[in-house]
Amino acid sequence: MANLSLMLPLLALSLLAVFAADATTLQDFCVTNPIGQGNSLCKDPKLVEANDFFFSGLHIAGNTTNAAGSKVTPVFAAQLPGLNTLGISMARVDIAPWGVNPPHSHPRATEIFTVLEGTLEVGFITSNPENRHFSKVLHKGDVFVFPIGLIHYQRNIGHDNVIAIAALSSQNPGAITIGNAVFGATPEIASEVLIKAFQLEKNAINYLQSKF
Amino acid sequence: MANLSLMLPLLALSLLAVFAADATTLQDFCVTNPIGQGNSLCKDPKLVEANDFFFSGLHIAGNTTNAAGSKVTPVFAAQLPGLNTLGISMARVDIAPWGVNPPHSHPRATEIFTVLEGTLEVGFITSNPENRHFSKVLHKGDVFVFPIGLIHYQRNIGHDNVIAIAALSSQNPGAITIGNAVFGATPEIASEVLIKAFQLEKNAINYLQSKF
Amino acid sequence: MANLSLMLPLLALSLLAVFAADATTLQDFCVTNPIGQGNSLCKDPKLVEANDFFFSGLHIAGNTTNAAGSKVTPVFAAQLPGLNTLGISMARVDIAPWGVNPPHSHPRATEIFTVLEGTLEVGFITSNPENRHFSKVLHKGDVFVFPIGLIHYQRNIGHDNVIAIAALSSQNPGAITIGNAVFGATPEIASEVLIKAFQLEKNAINYLQSKF
Amino acid sequence: MANLSLMLPLLALSLLAVFAADATTLQDFCVTNPIGQGNSLCKDPKLVEANDFFFSGLHIAGNTTNAAGSKVTPVFAAQLPGLNTLGISMARVDIAPWGVNPPHSHPRATEIFTVLEGTLEVGFITSNPENRHFSKVLHKGDVFVFPIGLIHYQRNIGHDNVIAIAALSSQNPGAITIGNAVFGATPEIASEVLIKAFQLEKNAINYLQSKF
Amino acid sequence: MANLSLMLPLLALSLLAVFAADATTLQDFCVTNPIGQGNSLCKDPKLVEANDFFFSGLHIAGNTTNAAGSKVTPVFAAQLPGLNTLGISMARVDIAPWGVNPPHSHPRATEIFTVLEGTLEVGFITSNPENRHFSKVLHKGDVFVFPIGLIHYQRNIGHDNVIAIAALSSQNPGAITIGNAVFGATPEIASEVLIKAFQLEKNAINYLQSKF
Amino acid sequence: MANLSLMLPLLALSLLAVFAADATTLQDFCVTNPIGQGNSLCKDPKLVEANDFFFSGLHIAGNTTNAAGSKVTPVFAAQLPGLNTLGISMARVDIAPWGVNPPHSHPRATEIFTVLEGTLEVGFITSNPENRHFSKVLHKGDVFVFPIGLIHYQRNIGHDNVIAIAALSSQNPGAITIGNAVFGATPEIASEVLIKAFQLEKNAINYLQSKF
Repeated sequence: MANLSLMLPLLALSLLAVFAADATTLQDFCVTNPIGQGNSLCKDPKLVEANDFFFSGLHIAGNTTNAAGSKVTPVFAAQLPGLNTLGISMARVDIAPWGVNPPHSHPRATEIFTVLEGTLEVGFITSNPENRHFSKVLHKGDVFVFPIGLIHYQRNIGHDNVIAIAALSSQNPGAITIGNAVFGATPEIASEVLIKAFQLEKNAINYLQSKF
Repeated sequence: MANLSLMLPLLALSLLAVFAADATTLQDFCVTNPIGQGNSLCKDPKLVEANDFFFSGLHIAGNTTNAAGSKVTPVFAAQLPGLNTLGISMARVDIAPWGVNPPHSHPRATEIFTVLEGTLEVGFITSNPENRHFSKVLHKGDVFVFPIGLIHYQRNIGHDNVIAIAALSSQNPGAITIGNAVFGATPEIASEVLIKAFQLEKNAINYLQSKF
Repeated sequence: MANLSLMLPLLALSLLAVFAADATTLQDFCVTNPIGQGNSLCKDPKLVEANDFFFSGLHIAGNTTNAAGSKVTPVFAAQLPGLNTLGISMARVDIAPWGVNPPHSHPRATEIFTVLEGTLEVGFITSNPENRHFSKVLHKGDVFVFPIGLIHYQRNIGHDNVIAIAALSSQNPGAITIGNAVFGATPEIASEVLIKAFQLEKNAINYLQSKF
Repeated sequence: MANLSLMLPLLALSLLAVFAADATTLQDFCVTNPIGQGNSLCKDPKLVEANDFFFSGLHIAGNTTNAAGSKVTPVFAAQLPGLNTLGISMARVDIAPWGVNPPHSHPRATEIFTVLEGTLEVGFITSNPENRHFSKVLHKGDVFVFPIGLIHYQRNIGHDNVIAIAALSSQNPGAITIGNAVFGATPEIASEVLIKAFQLEKNAINYLQSKF
Repeated sequence: MANLSLMLPLLALSLLAVFAADATTLQDFCVTNPIGQGNSLCKDPKLVEANDFFFSGLHIAGNTTNAAGSKVTPVFAAQLPGLNTLGISMARVDIAPWGVNPPHSHPRATEIFTVLEGTLEVGFITSNPENRHFSKVLHKGDVFVFPIGLIHYQRNIGHDNVIAIAALSSQNPGAITIGNAVFGATPEIASEVLIKAFQLEKNAINYLQSKF
Repeated sequence: MANLSLMLPLLALSLLAVFAADATTLQDFCVTNPIGQGNSLCKDPKLVEANDFFFSGLHIAGNTTNAAGSKVTPVFAAQLPGLNTLGISMARVDIAPWGVNPPHSHPRATEIFTVLEGTLEVGFITSNPENRHFSKVLHKGDVFVFPIGLIHYQRNIGHDNVIAIAALSSQNPGAITIGNAVFGATPEIASEVLIKAFQLEKNAINYLQSKF
């Protein structure tokens, strides 16, 4: 049955695909089944324990020594298997002074965001044709909402580190960082598309693609 | 495979946890897994390729040499595995002159329909007690909507073939052709039911059942 | 009321935002608001009383002196306003000896059905292409399920009245009685459509349409 | 593992079924698969028969010789496999004279309840901060609604047995009996929690916990 | 039109009832309309501003000088109108040393909970028949999940204040505090019900009811 | 306020309609109410006519004399009011030789796309961290799927005009054109954010912002 136990994590993985985040559930919980622990898409309820609903580590600062100067520490179903089927997740966001969490969207979740430390500017942009930009400076204790699917960002505008807690309305919200998706796709998007889309010359597009 | 049969009730049990609508997905896509290609309900994302989101052939006319004089060419999840979990599908409809796409309902989808060639009458009927009949003559470039679950039909009223593209709000909309379901069910519905339902004599019902 | 008419497009616009399923509510209940009692889509919670969740009369037999020999007494949101938003409803079904509840579908609900008195045959037919007919003889205390959207019927095959309680998975399940929708639509469906659909001659179609 | 690869297409097929919600299904039905009958999450449609949609026994009185003087006989997906994915279920409720169906909630369903025999008081309590208590005396033929998630109860206030039929808006509604969950949990909730929650002394809490 | 402007908050309120927390939305956002600002269920998008997505104050400790020794500060749609239709909300939880957030359930949301300061015990109880109690001691940076609809609690077991951030999978999750709902309902639940439910004598029930 | 109280039952009636989701509707249809025609969120069913389900003009080529060399002609609920609550819409896409439909996402819909005339390259990019680019050359009669929320594009690579029909799984899918949202937002996103996000110098960002 070795092959069978190999099969199970894939089954569990695929369960993610067939569950609507916040539709009614049909049992108290369905813990994602780790490899080889029983044969069900959900972990056998008899084997479920408190640790399946537990994650530790959000007190630890993320490493912001990178180009953007920011780091997101996720607590999604992949990190906390008890979240499976329950339609919510959490993350810690660290941003160094002058760092940025670059423009991105969550295709499957709205984000609610609260500041524990620091001062930052946040914003989101609405869909066509208006493409309105809603932005706000946030301080400790402030809360802001980024509606599902809209492009948004955060920028540290203070002299201290920003620490924030975000919650998302999906166990697996997904993230599309615009720069990486458009200029860093694998394989690359044909330069003819990007030249027309961004009204740039070919060498400018090549430069951008070389960056990602 | 003894362990495998032990596994099945657990799989069935876990089915309770898997409760979703077309509306929300929990990953970018979940391509239906063809036979033997990996062990997941979704095809292994690493093995997914552009062809999984591709179908070819809607430029080919359907064969309308049949009693109704019409043919539907479906592009559902069964034909296009990348549609799995995404809540939409498409079809080409061909109707010969004086042909009919007979009264039917889609139990799981609304249909939006646009005419590429020809002239036809379309209509749908509302539920009890009104049973109102909404109908319209359509020409090239016209669009019409058939709301989910309602009985509807199309009829070619021109001298040329009708070609139309329909889209449906489910990956597997289903179709119930009224004549076939009522008079062509297997096994047959007791004639006593149909005599009362259609206020016909037994030989008329037998005649109708013989037709389907 | 000029301001009021200005208000309407905004109301219609806002309808876009109101997107819900039977499954999830966002407050304990939302009683349908009767005429003139407050101005909310939901009755003012302060004015809600136990009677809003109450209906009386399912002990009273329906009048089956009609062509089909059957009668359905509904307890839907229109009869029990507290059902609004809660995704379930109920009905009493009475069928006289040899009476029939003719073939129909519920576009918005599955039906679960239990027999209080009598003996009947029930059945439903699956969608294309199989159009399989599942039928069963039911006695007192039996329960049967008619899946959402499928054509089904009930027929009293005993010498006593049939009394049954049905529950449906929608506050407003809707019903499409096949004969009435196809042959009794207003205005009538063009006979050319029905001739092709049922492979009958024009006078047979005219006869059927005259019946409904 | 030949049998395993045979199993996969069926799993993929059944994926269509596990998208079913109270709202939308993706095939006509998905009967829960009993042990060892095929390898799909849904029973192979070719093997499905009328008995999969059938349950017998609601004419039989439940045994009310217990502390509460009441008994619920469920017809959920576990008892009627054809209910799987269809978002509804049923139950018979028997209450002896002066018996009680104690305060409980259904985390996944609204309940619609009709009285076949007897006289009872029913009620539910709304959420914080009001905690309003809606109650009503019911007689034969009366119908009452208990909204999803709210604590409710029934009490026989007559001299005869109460018999009722309840329908619930989930195939597996779940039940949380308050006394058992709070004072009878395994392992017990720390008495310090209950002392503060119910403002009782430790020996009173110990007494209550000993009862459950 | 004074009455009309009075009508708007009620309309907005009722919108809460008709929105499935995490179903797909049909526009970028639908800010709950405050009294008299326009006539739409959603605030006129042209009038929406960044402050509609903003809340300030989660850095302020809640007042825990009460019987339970705890305080919840909500950031729901009622406090942050931009959350309307987006299916998520947040709260700050303060618990004094030896204080308790007493057993309660959220009928419309799963809760994900992270500790900013202090040490506490948390737990939830599953539905019948097991009523299993899952509990865990949490420290700074720990995360725990309370599945939708299940009874749960938090208890400060340290010598310092507990500060935590909770996120909930609904814009209006609701809360049912068990003690208040069962013993503090208005009007009171008949003591006969509680005597049977908790197997206590009448004076014990009267004592409990006097406490709430 | 007589008219207003007359309005209320219609509002209540329309509440049934606003429960409609891509998944479930609560009545046969809910036509968006045009200005001043009645007071309901849904057009009065008695006033609904076939034209409410009808749109004309998809045979007319869109004007592609613009920078991108492409034009989308939408048939959404705003153009076809009968689509309201039905979870589907359609569009015609025209692309001149060497024209491009630039990278964009639909936050609320999957798109299924079929080619009527011409030859084009299409593609979409998956979410982080892979950002895989799936692309395909399409000819007449080919069908391709763009999953909900993912960035995608189309490019005419032939010498003739491209004509395509797209269907989307929402009545109001929304579109976010990346270039416009990031570089053309109103007001502009702070250049510091874009400098970090795209690793460009300030004058390059200023140039891009000047283009949109």
